Amino acid sequence: MSSAPHGVAIGIDVGGTKILGLVLGDDERILARAQVPTPHPDIPDRGSALADAIAGLVGAFEAGAPANAPVGIGVPGLVESTSTLVFGPHLPSAGSADLRSLLDAPLASRVKLVANDADLAVLAEHRAGAGLGHDEVLLVTLGTGIGGGIISGGKPVRGAGFAGEVGHMVLDVNGPWCPCGSRGCWERFASGSGLGRIAREAALADRLSSVVAAVGGDPEAVRGEDVTAAARAGDPEALVILDEVGWWLARGLANLISILDPTCVIIGGGMAETAELLLAPAQRHLRLLIEAAHVREPLTLLRAHFGPDAGAVGAALAASDAA
Amino acid sequence: MSSAPHGVAIGIDVGGTKILGLVLGDDERILARAQVPTPHPDIPDRGSALADAIAGLVGAFEAGAPANAPVGIGVPGLVESTSTLVFGPHLPSAGSADLRSLLDAPLASRVKLVANDADLAVLAEHRAGAGLGHDEVLLVTLGTGIGGGIISGGKPVRGAGFAGEVGHMVLDVNGPWCPCGSRGCWERFASGSGLGRIAREAALADRLSSVVAAVGGDPEAVRGEDVTAAARAGDPEALVILDEVGWWLARGLANLISILDPTCVIIGGGMAETAELLLAPAQRHLRLLIEAAHVREPLTLLRAHFGPDAGAVGAALAASDAA
Repeated sequence: MSSAPHGVAIGIDVGGTKILGLVLGDDERILARAQVPTPHPDIPDRGSALADAIAGLVGAFEAGAPANAPVGIGVPGLVESTSTLVFGPHLPSAGSADLRSLLDAPLASRVKLVANDADLAVLAEHRAGAGLGHDEVLLVTLGTGIGGGIISGGKPVRGAGFAGEVGHMVLDVNGPWCPCGSRGCWERFASGSGLGRIAREAALADRLSSVVAAVGGDPEAVRGEDVTAAARAGDPEALVILDEVGWWLARGLANLISILDPTCVIIGGGMAETAELLLAPAQRHLRLLIEAAHVREPLTLLRAHFGPDAGAVGAALAASDAA
Repeated sequence: MSSAPHGVAIGIDVGGTKILGLVLGDDERILARAQVPTPHPDIPDRGSALADAIAGLVGAFEAGAPANAPVGIGVPGLVESTSTLVFGPHLPSAGSADLRSLLDAPLASRVKLVANDADLAVLAEHRAGAGLGHDEVLLVTLGTGIGGGIISGGKPVRGAGFAGEVGHMVLDVNGPWCPCGSRGCWERFASGSGLGRIAREAALADRLSSVVAAVGGDPEAVRGEDVTAAARAGDPEALVILDEVGWWLARGLANLISILDPTCVIIGGGMAETAELLLAPAQRHLRLLIEAAHVREPLTLLRAHFGPDAGAVGAALAASDAA
């Protein structure tokens, strides 16, 4: 057992774009937070730049957390129980990296787990968030890609260890290629990178004139964030794009509902920040897309209680459990 | 408790095309079997023709089973715990039918359960078949449609009650319409009806000349069975069609493997009879379609130990448990 006050723990959530760290108190309050860009070295370094960034983030909490507070790390990809990230399509430089072994000794011993980010997020939401009281929970994290965490019968569904890779569910066999090697994966449409792709295609097709003007006239320069900002300001063309992304979000959710039939569906991840723009259209489309919706209890899409922090909160909770 | 010898039970599996009944001994041996066509009355009769057919099948076992042997019934669709088939796209006449209440009193009291066919099939395979020893099992039943049964952590995944409706996972958002109201559901491609549809399209496109000749020259008359028979005889055009259906089978399985990561994948249902023609191409395609296959344990597709009987065997096992 650690001598840290029970429950004070550090959670790290590695995304494709940024790394979020936070200190979680024993009452599940967030005591401190920090964020750094995810390093993407040009040459595969087997995770060493990533490990340095994580060490830096933990170091930033030295004043705000007990020096021996346990650390949990969430990563977007397939993780073996040994803490090795065996496959992370959004972290190409860190493939096969055993993250714990890359950290210096005092920190390495505090890292209680490296786990899939969405598995940690659903743990947080099931235990203390939007999934409280439900035994059949589906959490979908929208970030650079799409992750999934599944609870059935109150227990995590992990399969052989890699369950929940919902972003690579193919929805359109003739769709755009995905880095995973398939065509038309869900995350080509309904993730942050999917929004960016759809936005650029729309810009090139002259369907986003105000947004293109706002970024200086180059349709290729349009990013997802630009469309989100324009939609928030009421731009009708941008709202159409978010409606389209919302349809794709709903289509993938309808598939998962056919397969898993959850009583509670939670949307988390970095893109949850834009959830109000995406969830309303997704909810509307979902009603029409769910198989046999008329015989099921209606489902309301919930935002992650911990928002984009859910993965890091779950990492801290799991680290605290394991300390 | 019934006074029937423990374990002797009758299992009924209602398919879109035929109803299979069997008497299961306490050693999981099949003591008797019978089969009748599924009635499809022109006018919705809320299941009364279906109930008559089931009663007739059970009656046929009078000589071979104790008069009070418990009965379990599997149906292809969504079943409420009350034994009501609330949604069965392949049994349109029996929508909203409470099957137990349609049976006469002595038989009705022997019906211990009405449940989803694939949930029963995976129970049979997990307890006594191809899934023995595995805690993470996916069973996919190929019949008129596609059903699914999921075991995770050794327990059935049922969600709110309707989990495992894998046939309505959309794989091709621009694909052919499905009776469920969506486009491009898996069962439009990889079920018995999917094979028939793909075969007719191929026949109309002049891609199945020998098969068309064998059925008398009318491409519209080609059925899935004709293609299967031709493939079995080595017809190269028919083998191409089965390879295509095998690709679709693999594509859907790859999605489910991303989501559930089972250690054991079993193929059952009526179409399992043609499994040797379908599973070899599906296995070959699957290797290329599974996300991050190189970091996972290789998966060998297994045929249901109980073959097309798995649903009926599971119905009998569950009835015996409940007696």
